[in-house]
Amino acid sequence: MEADMNTETRGILESVRNGTLSVDEALEKLKAQPFADIGFAKVDLHRAIRQGVPEVVYAAGKTVDQILKILETMEENAQGNILITRLEKEPADQIGKVRKITYDANARIADTGTMPKPNGIGKIVVATGGTSDIPVAEEAALTAAFLGNEVVRLYDVGVAGLHRLLSQKEEIMRASVIIAIAGMEGALASVVAGLADCPVIAVPTSVGYGASFQGLSALLSMLNSCASGVSVVNIDNGFGAGYLASMINHMEAKK
Amino acid sequence: MEADMNTETRGILESVRNGTLSVDEALEKLKAQPFADIGFAKVDLHRAIRQGVPEVVYAAGKTVDQILKILETMEENAQGNILITRLEKEPADQIGKVRKITYDANARIADTGTMPKPNGIGKIVVATGGTSDIPVAEEAALTAAFLGNEVVRLYDVGVAGLHRLLSQKEEIMRASVIIAIAGMEGALASVVAGLADCPVIAVPTSVGYGASFQGLSALLSMLNSCASGVSVVNIDNGFGAGYLASMINHMEAKK
Amino acid sequence: MEADMNTETRGILESVRNGTLSVDEALEKLKAQPFADIGFAKVDLHRAIRQGVPEVVYAAGKTVDQILKILETMEENAQGNILITRLEKEPADQIGKVRKITYDANARIADTGTMPKPNGIGKIVVATGGTSDIPVAEEAALTAAFLGNEVVRLYDVGVAGLHRLLSQKEEIMRASVIIAIAGMEGALASVVAGLADCPVIAVPTSVGYGASFQGLSALLSMLNSCASGVSVVNIDNGFGAGYLASMINHMEAKK
Amino acid sequence: MEADMNTETRGILESVRNGTLSVDEALEKLKAQPFADIGFAKVDLHRAIRQGVPEVVYAAGKTVDQILKILETMEENAQGNILITRLEKEPADQIGKVRKITYDANARIADTGTMPKPNGIGKIVVATGGTSDIPVAEEAALTAAFLGNEVVRLYDVGVAGLHRLLSQKEEIMRASVIIAIAGMEGALASVVAGLADCPVIAVPTSVGYGASFQGLSALLSMLNSCASGVSVVNIDNGFGAGYLASMINHMEAKK
Amino acid sequence: MEADMNTETRGILESVRNGTLSVDEALEKLKAQPFADIGFAKVDLHRAIRQGVPEVVYAAGKTVDQILKILETMEENAQGNILITRLEKEPADQIGKVRKITYDANARIADTGTMPKPNGIGKIVVATGGTSDIPVAEEAALTAAFLGNEVVRLYDVGVAGLHRLLSQKEEIMRASVIIAIAGMEGALASVVAGLADCPVIAVPTSVGYGASFQGLSALLSMLNSCASGVSVVNIDNGFGAGYLASMINHMEAKK
Amino acid sequence: MEADMNTETRGILESVRNGTLSVDEALEKLKAQPFADIGFAKVDLHRAIRQGVPEVVYAAGKTVDQILKILETMEENAQGNILITRLEKEPADQIGKVRKITYDANARIADTGTMPKPNGIGKIVVATGGTSDIPVAEEAALTAAFLGNEVVRLYDVGVAGLHRLLSQKEEIMRASVIIAIAGMEGALASVVAGLADCPVIAVPTSVGYGASFQGLSALLSMLNSCASGVSVVNIDNGFGAGYLASMINHMEAKK
Amino acid sequence: MEADMNTETRGILESVRNGTLSVDEALEKLKAQPFADIGFAKVDLHRAIRQGVPEVVYAAGKTVDQILKILETMEENAQGNILITRLEKEPADQIGKVRKITYDANARIADTGTMPKPNGIGKIVVATGGTSDIPVAEEAALTAAFLGNEVVRLYDVGVAGLHRLLSQKEEIMRASVIIAIAGMEGALASVVAGLADCPVIAVPTSVGYGASFQGLSALLSMLNSCASGVSVVNIDNGFGAGYLASMINHMEAKK
Amino acid sequence: MEADMNTETRGILESVRNGTLSVDEALEKLKAQPFADIGFAKVDLHRAIRQGVPEVVYAAGKTVDQILKILETMEENAQGNILITRLEKEPADQIGKVRKITYDANARIADTGTMPKPNGIGKIVVATGGTSDIPVAEEAALTAAFLGNEVVRLYDVGVAGLHRLLSQKEEIMRASVIIAIAGMEGALASVVAGLADCPVIAVPTSVGYGASFQGLSALLSMLNSCASGVSVVNIDNGFGAGYLASMINHMEAKK
Repeated sequence: MEADMNTETRGILESVRNGTLSVDEALEKLKAQPFADIGFAKVDLHRAIRQGVPEVVYAAGKTVDQILKILETMEENAQGNILITRLEKEPADQIGKVRKITYDANARIADTGTMPKPNGIGKIVVATGGTSDIPVAEEAALTAAFLGNEVVRLYDVGVAGLHRLLSQKEEIMRASVIIAIAGMEGALASVVAGLADCPVIAVPTSVGYGASFQGLSALLSMLNSCASGVSVVNIDNGFGAGYLASMINHMEAKK
Repeated sequence: MEADMNTETRGILESVRNGTLSVDEALEKLKAQPFADIGFAKVDLHRAIRQGVPEVVYAAGKTVDQILKILETMEENAQGNILITRLEKEPADQIGKVRKITYDANARIADTGTMPKPNGIGKIVVATGGTSDIPVAEEAALTAAFLGNEVVRLYDVGVAGLHRLLSQKEEIMRASVIIAIAGMEGALASVVAGLADCPVIAVPTSVGYGASFQGLSALLSMLNSCASGVSVVNIDNGFGAGYLASMINHMEAKK
Repeated sequence: MEADMNTETRGILESVRNGTLSVDEALEKLKAQPFADIGFAKVDLHRAIRQGVPEVVYAAGKTVDQILKILETMEENAQGNILITRLEKEPADQIGKVRKITYDANARIADTGTMPKPNGIGKIVVATGGTSDIPVAEEAALTAAFLGNEVVRLYDVGVAGLHRLLSQKEEIMRASVIIAIAGMEGALASVVAGLADCPVIAVPTSVGYGASFQGLSALLSMLNSCASGVSVVNIDNGFGAGYLASMINHMEAKK
Repeated sequence: MEADMNTETRGILESVRNGTLSVDEALEKLKAQPFADIGFAKVDLHRAIRQGVPEVVYAAGKTVDQILKILETMEENAQGNILITRLEKEPADQIGKVRKITYDANARIADTGTMPKPNGIGKIVVATGGTSDIPVAEEAALTAAFLGNEVVRLYDVGVAGLHRLLSQKEEIMRASVIIAIAGMEGALASVVAGLADCPVIAVPTSVGYGASFQGLSALLSMLNSCASGVSVVNIDNGFGAGYLASMINHMEAKK
Repeated sequence: MEADMNTETRGILESVRNGTLSVDEALEKLKAQPFADIGFAKVDLHRAIRQGVPEVVYAAGKTVDQILKILETMEENAQGNILITRLEKEPADQIGKVRKITYDANARIADTGTMPKPNGIGKIVVATGGTSDIPVAEEAALTAAFLGNEVVRLYDVGVAGLHRLLSQKEEIMRASVIIAIAGMEGALASVVAGLADCPVIAVPTSVGYGASFQGLSALLSMLNSCASGVSVVNIDNGFGAGYLASMINHMEAKK
Repeated sequence: MEADMNTETRGILESVRNGTLSVDEALEKLKAQPFADIGFAKVDLHRAIRQGVPEVVYAAGKTVDQILKILETMEENAQGNILITRLEKEPADQIGKVRKITYDANARIADTGTMPKPNGIGKIVVATGGTSDIPVAEEAALTAAFLGNEVVRLYDVGVAGLHRLLSQKEEIMRASVIIAIAGMEGALASVVAGLADCPVIAVPTSVGYGASFQGLSALLSMLNSCASGVSVVNIDNGFGAGYLASMINHMEAKK
Repeated sequence: MEADMNTETRGILESVRNGTLSVDEALEKLKAQPFADIGFAKVDLHRAIRQGVPEVVYAAGKTVDQILKILETMEENAQGNILITRLEKEPADQIGKVRKITYDANARIADTGTMPKPNGIGKIVVATGGTSDIPVAEEAALTAAFLGNEVVRLYDVGVAGLHRLLSQKEEIMRASVIIAIAGMEGALASVVAGLADCPVIAVPTSVGYGASFQGLSALLSMLNSCASGVSVVNIDNGFGAGYLASMINHMEAKK
Repeated sequence: MEADMNTETRGILESVRNGTLSVDEALEKLKAQPFADIGFAKVDLHRAIRQGVPEVVYAAGKTVDQILKILETMEENAQGNILITRLEKEPADQIGKVRKITYDANARIADTGTMPKPNGIGKIVVATGGTSDIPVAEEAALTAAFLGNEVVRLYDVGVAGLHRLLSQKEEIMRASVIIAIAGMEGALASVVAGLADCPVIAVPTSVGYGASFQGLSALLSMLNSCASGVSVVNIDNGFGAGYLASMINHMEAKK
């Protein structure tokens, strides 16, 4: 985006030299913004054009009216493939009455477009410690799928029953990126990273009770992982993990 | 101890009935204390008689003079087998000038007696996540040995290199009790407990940096273990783990 | 479990040598898993066979459909004696319509089988500081009972009224294992461990208000117990305490 | 002090009415301060006159020069009986070269006057959980003694060996106020308050390691005491406890 | 209570000597408990007789049935003056249908007896920082009144408008004990203690938002008070403050 | 206010000298309070007269009856322009039935008077990181407007899309004071302060999830800002920021 | 600074139109940086020119060589009036050997220039709760003085002895801005803000012990201040408070 | 590694079938470990062979003797290119006397081999907020360089002076991976991630004071980053960031 801007700046300067642009017009253009200002939000309008990926709207803390206005603004600017995260069932139903969305209540994700074909380097493995971590895992998995990745789900492979995890060693060995999702003691990330040779994105979840302190235990555990190649995102941040995993899984396309 | 007291109470009452003991003497005896009061400390004098185990002196926060006075009081009461924990090298050297002790600088433990023969149900396995956890592990291992247990040491078997741990599966399967010691992410306890069928005593250590927060990360991780049979003692509390492990490893002798 | 695997591995190898098993079949068998993969969960199928104890399903965070599917999978694999923990009344009622369960709303525990006869070394004492700790205590007590232990309940014996606790000294002295359950200042564990000679499993509860910080106060207090033989499980983790107590109370059967 | 002021105000007003005091003089007097301003400190000069108790200088964070200047200012204002708290050995030695003080290195307290005769309602019991708590206890005990109280010391009576505490029941029953001092799990306050009928001032100490978190564990434990009549002062605040205990032990003299 | 016990023990011993009591009967009596065991609770039965004060039932975490059963047990033992704290409106209404209680919804306190005449040394001042602290203040004030104290209420005198507090200086000067109740920054306790010469019991409240962290801010502030004579009880613990204030306000009656 | 008091004191003293005021009357007047005591609250009555600004009632934790009584007391004392903050919709509706108020549900603010004309030094910029921060921002913006300031709103200019913020550089450069409001990582304050030359008041919000810990993350981030000129108010404290911004924006009027 | 840039941008554009600047030269100029890159630091070179204030170097974490190199770079760019904060005595001595600086060991501040004449709106009052807070206060006071402000110091006026603070009411009433500095309970900010009508910048200090938790108690207390007009900077951040106070005290000069 | 194992297992099985390996020999081989057990450590011996990368020894908490023994074991197993992290100057000097190492005191890193040629996809940018973050940055940069990456250093580009960062936009746009290192408010990661399109690895540092709480502030800030593509490693974990960045920068080589 910034690189484009540099090119654009040169163009503006050349127009000024050519006299096809006045100084005031140039000043105005240099301030032009790649987003639409609708008061309560500044909607990014360049991302899809630049990267061919769906736009993302974070629904938590926004009213249905605000979400609809953002969707409308995006579509007026020709952005049809939009991902809406952290969207609860009730607002999703209300939005569904007005425009066509595909909604997954478990992952709390909606999208307005069509699922792309996977075009990454390899597969992204999404693993969870338990069954209760699945909503976060689905947020990660659906995000990755929307961004053009093949996703392999390994659910309920927590370290307390190591044979469950070890039986999936081949999937783990073959992964391009692994998203390790766990609450409670959060040990899954370390064990998986010890088995694999690829980047492991650890997602602590707020699953648990007592001294799990809403995910703090898993968060600290993952940050302290002795295994190399592990990094951590926010508690329950399935979207962030899916997005980053896709970025890494598309590395070779870059440059 | 309390059971003995009950028997003792009956004896006193019977003496009162027999007239061999006055009411005032009985009152006095009922208040008699199984410890010596030396001002800055109340020294327990009954434990060795009752249980045949070494007495324990926690040296941290005590002056050399206080420790020597406690040792003296114990020996005056015929207690020769004493374990001194958390004893730094310098005070150990000073004590060593006055009386005969065996001192282990790594575990910061001294004892004044002789090592007993193991007489527990089985073996106690002491496992650590890394090399830096060894001082805590040695505190646990020496404590258990002093209390009459066979100890197996499995050091540096952290979960980030799972093959190191799995190569020791047989020792783990055969253990009567396991002490799992780890800092950083503290995942060792969960993984070990998932492999074993015996009680696992988890000891978080203050080893680590940054978000390990002096052992808090490992502590929370261990408290949240999804594996059954795990319980936790204080950060760096090798002695407590060794003592409890010995207690469990001597269960069959009880009753 | 792992010990069985070792035996099994030898058998497979001998079959390969005998030519009764091809290399590929052997490879397949070496990867065979002692659990059923039903997508959202990996159901352990070997525990009851190995240990004769009821299987455990942790219901929190699982839908009724998921729980029923897990129960079904277990029963298809001949496991009839199943313990379901952290099961709220409403899902319990829904499950009760489909299959026969015995449900205790106070302890939030259901089971599908019959209560076994106690066969442990001795008795497990479950003590609470107050009346509000009873739900956690019942989770511990019922778990221990399901696992074949005789349980003695000492409720509302908090240290602020020491005579209530001291009046139960004989039960405490006779215990094989004690589960000490308390919120607020959590001092019960230390006092009980000072009176008893057996392992004490401390369970902090989230009972209290203000500076109890949902059980943090009791948790820290118990971790810092000066009494020997105390270890701690997660806040409100009655099940974990009951399970570990049973393990310790069955020590002599092992080997 | 404020009551005196009220009387003083009336006096000033009457002088104005009588014409013996001009309005400006009266304004000046109404602003007169019961302390000396020496730049880095405002030294209170009225306390000893009002209450006959020693003045208190908190030495931590003050240079030797500052302390000496404060002492000088006090003595210029006829205050000879001064208590200096949190005074380390080195500055105490320096001060001792310049003026006559009595210094207790254990309690880190110095005083410049003579010890008064006890004149309180009853005795103040100072009890500690362990030997390491004694410096804090001596700070409390010496403070109380300086303020005219009879002090009974019960050291090393922690709850893990309940018989040590119970053997002192009579001293506890007879106390006018009890100061319960403990680190680690801090259970002493609750147990003592359950035995006694008088106010219990709980002092958490920073004694301990690991999850004691420099006294946080004992602090929370004491704040959550289920026993009635317990209140808490800052971690290691022996002075505050001794001062408050003296206040309570002199209640009947008031009015 | 314990003192009575001592007397009782002597009596029992004398009866044994006299032959009017058998050893077994004596043993039984020595174990007799000053409370009734009703399973979920151990109800204290001696307090009212000993001290003439109302019994206290802490209702939070107890069912209506449990509370009624406790009340019944107390009354069977001739204890008619009972204080019930932390009793919400709904259970209060249910209890009110079965037995006669006086209920204060603001303070969440009920009592079954009659209010005693004040018989303390002086007056107890209950001061709050704001209007929102009043429920906690009323818990303290009603508790103190039930225990025989004259109570002066100074509400909404927070330090941000110092003239409101200073206008009440005389009430503060005349107090025998002051209960200072505040949330948010909790500075009231320090300022009041600086003005007064009597013990100040500080009660942090959970009033506030954001960085008040449910009373933690006020709690820490009060624990760190630079003013002498301040001690602290748990967040929102109006009852504890009222009880302790009464104890101090009745000091002269003791001995 | 205090300055007025000084003048008043001189007047009273002069009246005493003149004999137009008795000593007792003077004493009474010196104690006269600039507020009305209505039991549950001490209502400030002098502020509007002194400063011409609206009075402020903090509604959280007050009943509708209490709020109405405070409004009534203020109006009896001729204070018509009152701001009510933290007022939820339901109590606002109830108050609206009794007296005329203007209510903004988003900012949870009501006022009883008319909006003044801006008379500050310059403009106050209110900037937010996201859309979810708007309620806090509106609390700040409306407060500032009520206090006579021109307010510029820059919403959804979080640092993750820096071009949105940079496009508003001119508004930021022209600001007299900036209120920077953000949850999550709270970086907005630092970046804005780096761009601007005026005081920046940072308001952390509780917007976010997981490791935002209800605003703690943003709070710490803002307190640690490397940019000069930043100070912080409580989490979600839009009112406090608006009030302080107005104070700074009216600096030149002072003296 | 940015405003200057805007003007500069227009100038560059006009030069391009005039042909006195090529497009490439313009591009280069648009990227020109107002700082010198010396590898380990990017030294800001425009501030003194723009604002006439001393440059600031934060010395903590920098080697003497790095500090000297930064000073040299600044002086090469004609910036002679430099303030160095958080400079310990030892590196100050080393720097003092190489170049002329004025060093204040108490405030840990050095400067290389001359003290300007005060030119602010009014006076800045710097108040501390105790004597130990003076180093932080001097950092604030010297910073403010270096930036052209008249500073009034009110030290040791903590709220526990309210008369000390009230005796300074007039200084407080006359202040343009107040910096309130306190550790422990941090109540000074609230009380001062209740007395004054000007902005109060609260600086929590790490002075204290135990539950002050290195300034956390004072920090939370100050953030929760009920008084209007208070904002908070980082613990011990005297520089930040002095800088912001100067900014506010120069408000009228702006525009 | 595990993939190799699979191949190895097949080979062993085929040898058994062929009769060239007995069952017992096969059992033995299946248990063979890819590491050397030297008591206090289990040294990994396969990594260099498998991946051609240097082995890593974490020196903190290890004695010089232990480190030397580990190095010796590695070299006996033909691993010559070893990276030693967290190695303080003193032990480095001691090791340097025995074997040839290259030591960087700033980054606390030593290596025993030669620096490889960069062979990654692109460049790794290492950016810091300030000068004090450089030691952590050098740990990251040297690790990345040792692992075959071209590294670009952008130091002291914190967000409080945004122009410093924006002047480096082109380096940021061209990066393959960015490591953003900052203490205090930690905002650098969010701003950089908003400018770039590549994965950003955030490293909080313990640089700062007061409310930075040894890196907690930066850690939380980074975890809460609103920018996509950000993940976080432990506080001060430069090595972990460098290792992960290298892994991502070598993605295309995989498969």
